[in-house]
Amino acid sequence: MPQPLITLTTDFGEASPYVAAMKGVIFSFAPEVQIVDLGHQVPPQDVWHGAYFLAQAVPFFPPHALHVAVIDPGVGTQRRLLYCEAGPHRLLLPDNGLITFLADAQPLRRVVHLAEPNYWRPTPSRTFHGRDILAPVAARLALGEAPERLGPPLEPVELHRLPIAQGKATPQEIEGSIVFVDHFGNLITNLGMDLLAQAGWTPTPGSELRLSIPAAHPCRWVQTYGEAASGELVALFGSGGFVELAVVNGSAAARLNLPRGSMITLRR
Amino acid sequence: MPQPLITLTTDFGEASPYVAAMKGVIFSFAPEVQIVDLGHQVPPQDVWHGAYFLAQAVPFFPPHALHVAVIDPGVGTQRRLLYCEAGPHRLLLPDNGLITFLADAQPLRRVVHLAEPNYWRPTPSRTFHGRDILAPVAARLALGEAPERLGPPLEPVELHRLPIAQGKATPQEIEGSIVFVDHFGNLITNLGMDLLAQAGWTPTPGSELRLSIPAAHPCRWVQTYGEAASGELVALFGSGGFVELAVVNGSAAARLNLPRGSMITLRR
Amino acid sequence: MPQPLITLTTDFGEASPYVAAMKGVIFSFAPEVQIVDLGHQVPPQDVWHGAYFLAQAVPFFPPHALHVAVIDPGVGTQRRLLYCEAGPHRLLLPDNGLITFLADAQPLRRVVHLAEPNYWRPTPSRTFHGRDILAPVAARLALGEAPERLGPPLEPVELHRLPIAQGKATPQEIEGSIVFVDHFGNLITNLGMDLLAQAGWTPTPGSELRLSIPAAHPCRWVQTYGEAASGELVALFGSGGFVELAVVNGSAAARLNLPRGSMITLRR
Repeated sequence: MPQPLITLTTDFGEASPYVAAMKGVIFSFAPEVQIVDLGHQVPPQDVWHGAYFLAQAVPFFPPHALHVAVIDPGVGTQRRLLYCEAGPHRLLLPDNGLITFLADAQPLRRVVHLAEPNYWRPTPSRTFHGRDILAPVAARLALGEAPERLGPPLEPVELHRLPIAQGKATPQEIEGSIVFVDHFGNLITNLGMDLLAQAGWTPTPGSELRLSIPAAHPCRWVQTYGEAASGELVALFGSGGFVELAVVNGSAAARLNLPRGSMITLRR
Repeated sequence: MPQPLITLTTDFGEASPYVAAMKGVIFSFAPEVQIVDLGHQVPPQDVWHGAYFLAQAVPFFPPHALHVAVIDPGVGTQRRLLYCEAGPHRLLLPDNGLITFLADAQPLRRVVHLAEPNYWRPTPSRTFHGRDILAPVAARLALGEAPERLGPPLEPVELHRLPIAQGKATPQEIEGSIVFVDHFGNLITNLGMDLLAQAGWTPTPGSELRLSIPAAHPCRWVQTYGEAASGELVALFGSGGFVELAVVNGSAAARLNLPRGSMITLRR
Repeated sequence: MPQPLITLTTDFGEASPYVAAMKGVIFSFAPEVQIVDLGHQVPPQDVWHGAYFLAQAVPFFPPHALHVAVIDPGVGTQRRLLYCEAGPHRLLLPDNGLITFLADAQPLRRVVHLAEPNYWRPTPSRTFHGRDILAPVAARLALGEAPERLGPPLEPVELHRLPIAQGKATPQEIEGSIVFVDHFGNLITNLGMDLLAQAGWTPTPGSELRLSIPAAHPCRWVQTYGEAASGELVALFGSGGFVELAVVNGSAAARLNLPRGSMITLRR
């Protein structure tokens, strides 16, 4: 049996004591776990950002990890807290769309509504369910508690999902939207390898493209960031398998000033 | 016996190698510990911020955790380094007021002045006692060293404390100060549940209040952030049990521009 | 046998899912390791910053730790990935100069070019070798895989090094450059204790110096930050053994506006 593993993903930042309090509660109930930070810099209350983050992180973990995600602007209201099994992965998170991108790739196999207060801290606050509900439930699950004891089952279709758009591709043109802006200023789209392969959109590395946002920008198709000149705008398949826009040794986000959700078109 | 646990709280940030160096020293002396980050984004040299952070984090941990806190603008001067037992919790920190808020809630049971160089790194620097004194002492304590061997005892009353103000409450009005501004821009006051209950100040959820800072702002009393309209200024009991001001889906700190220490009055 | 230990140092930030994905891969191959964050706030693509960071962090770790560093603007190009033994320490990093400062103090004993794909994730991406090559290799090494199986040996002289300048010292004057700007705004130079001792440059604590950058600033030589008045510009030996410029309770970087690489002269 490997050491039980609990990961934490939040929008709490690290200057506030909220992540620390959750860790304390987890260790109080399960001193033998290893707690692993995935990231606490999800922008405040940005469920979309957190949902994309989880989809790009959770699938790389072994199934024995338990993932706790707290981006929870609706804390204390009627929104539900969930235990989810997505493919082989197990998560605890609010039912506010955080599961959206992950569930797209890893089908939801089981969902439980966390409704059984016996597994919570006594008299939980109305404003910090990460500490008072999710942390103690995570500790109990890590110690082997059966998920069905945490509350009633839910049908996956009952869950809240974010409205995510699909990209479009023809052999000459792909059209999609910016889904995520990463730490390097790379702009990651919803245009996946499969979609482009089906449409026969397979540009040669080094070939010239035209990016319309709608203003036109020259853009080179490459296989990796360092393949063009410093400062050049490039398009490539990123490590998640989606087209991204990047500036070599720079930031495409700063260059193009394109916020998340912006539409883009790439033409040969 | 659970795995020994050492937590770290600093103002070192993560772009500098100081936290990393402390971790290396701890593992050199005690490879079997688990090191847990509480937070390294305490604003530089902000002892007050660190003191509040510890008080909201440490009490949630099990007693076998050992907490090392380094917000230490006086490093290398005459300020003392301490081992403290606050309630069931054990800490290592400088004697500069960092213990203030925690000791308010968790009485100091034992204090030791770290004066025994045999437990330090040889020839410690004058500028980084976190690495050269606290880290090796933490490792030794985690391995079972008796605290009394680390130096002479101190009386708790000898410790440096920050001057913290008490709030005031009547059935019609509460008056206090901003103690902490959190990552979401929530403004947390020194007005606790007990104080308000004693004064009979128990507003109905949804009722209108008036905030004076001294300019007057309408403000709604709620039980949790999502109970009012987006953008509305609300007051509520936060997860630490104190009145806080918040803006739904926004930042009260940005809206009101109230720095820590500001006086506020809330009237029915 | 202590628990296997893998440290991570990157420029990935924590709002992006890249660190998390690496942790997932490591745990997938080696569930029994402890993963320790050294820092993920190295400025994007700043190899110099990362190289200095490693040199000030890695030497404090016990030899059983394995250090993975990913500041890798050349990912997917011809730059090599390396396994290095520097003194007793073991690292995995790109061959782009990241090893420079550490190798200065800890001679390279063995270097292996990571060229054996059997130890990688299948079909690695061109843009994220941290996840697809370094993480699985780290897990295998932590489990005891022999480094020579990872690829062919390299001579240490074949490695890419950053061009680092040496400082100069006379009994009256020292001249060097800013090597690192830390989280507190301290400006750390390349002027080491040994160099100054050889030149007989040993100012008395409290003595007045003149800093030329080239504009002249009065500056006091001290032993630690808190030894001068708040706001005063001081020079001292920092915790890494090099002369640094600091402002008591403030930031020398903000006061002097000196970027990394700037030349400075200190005269008695």
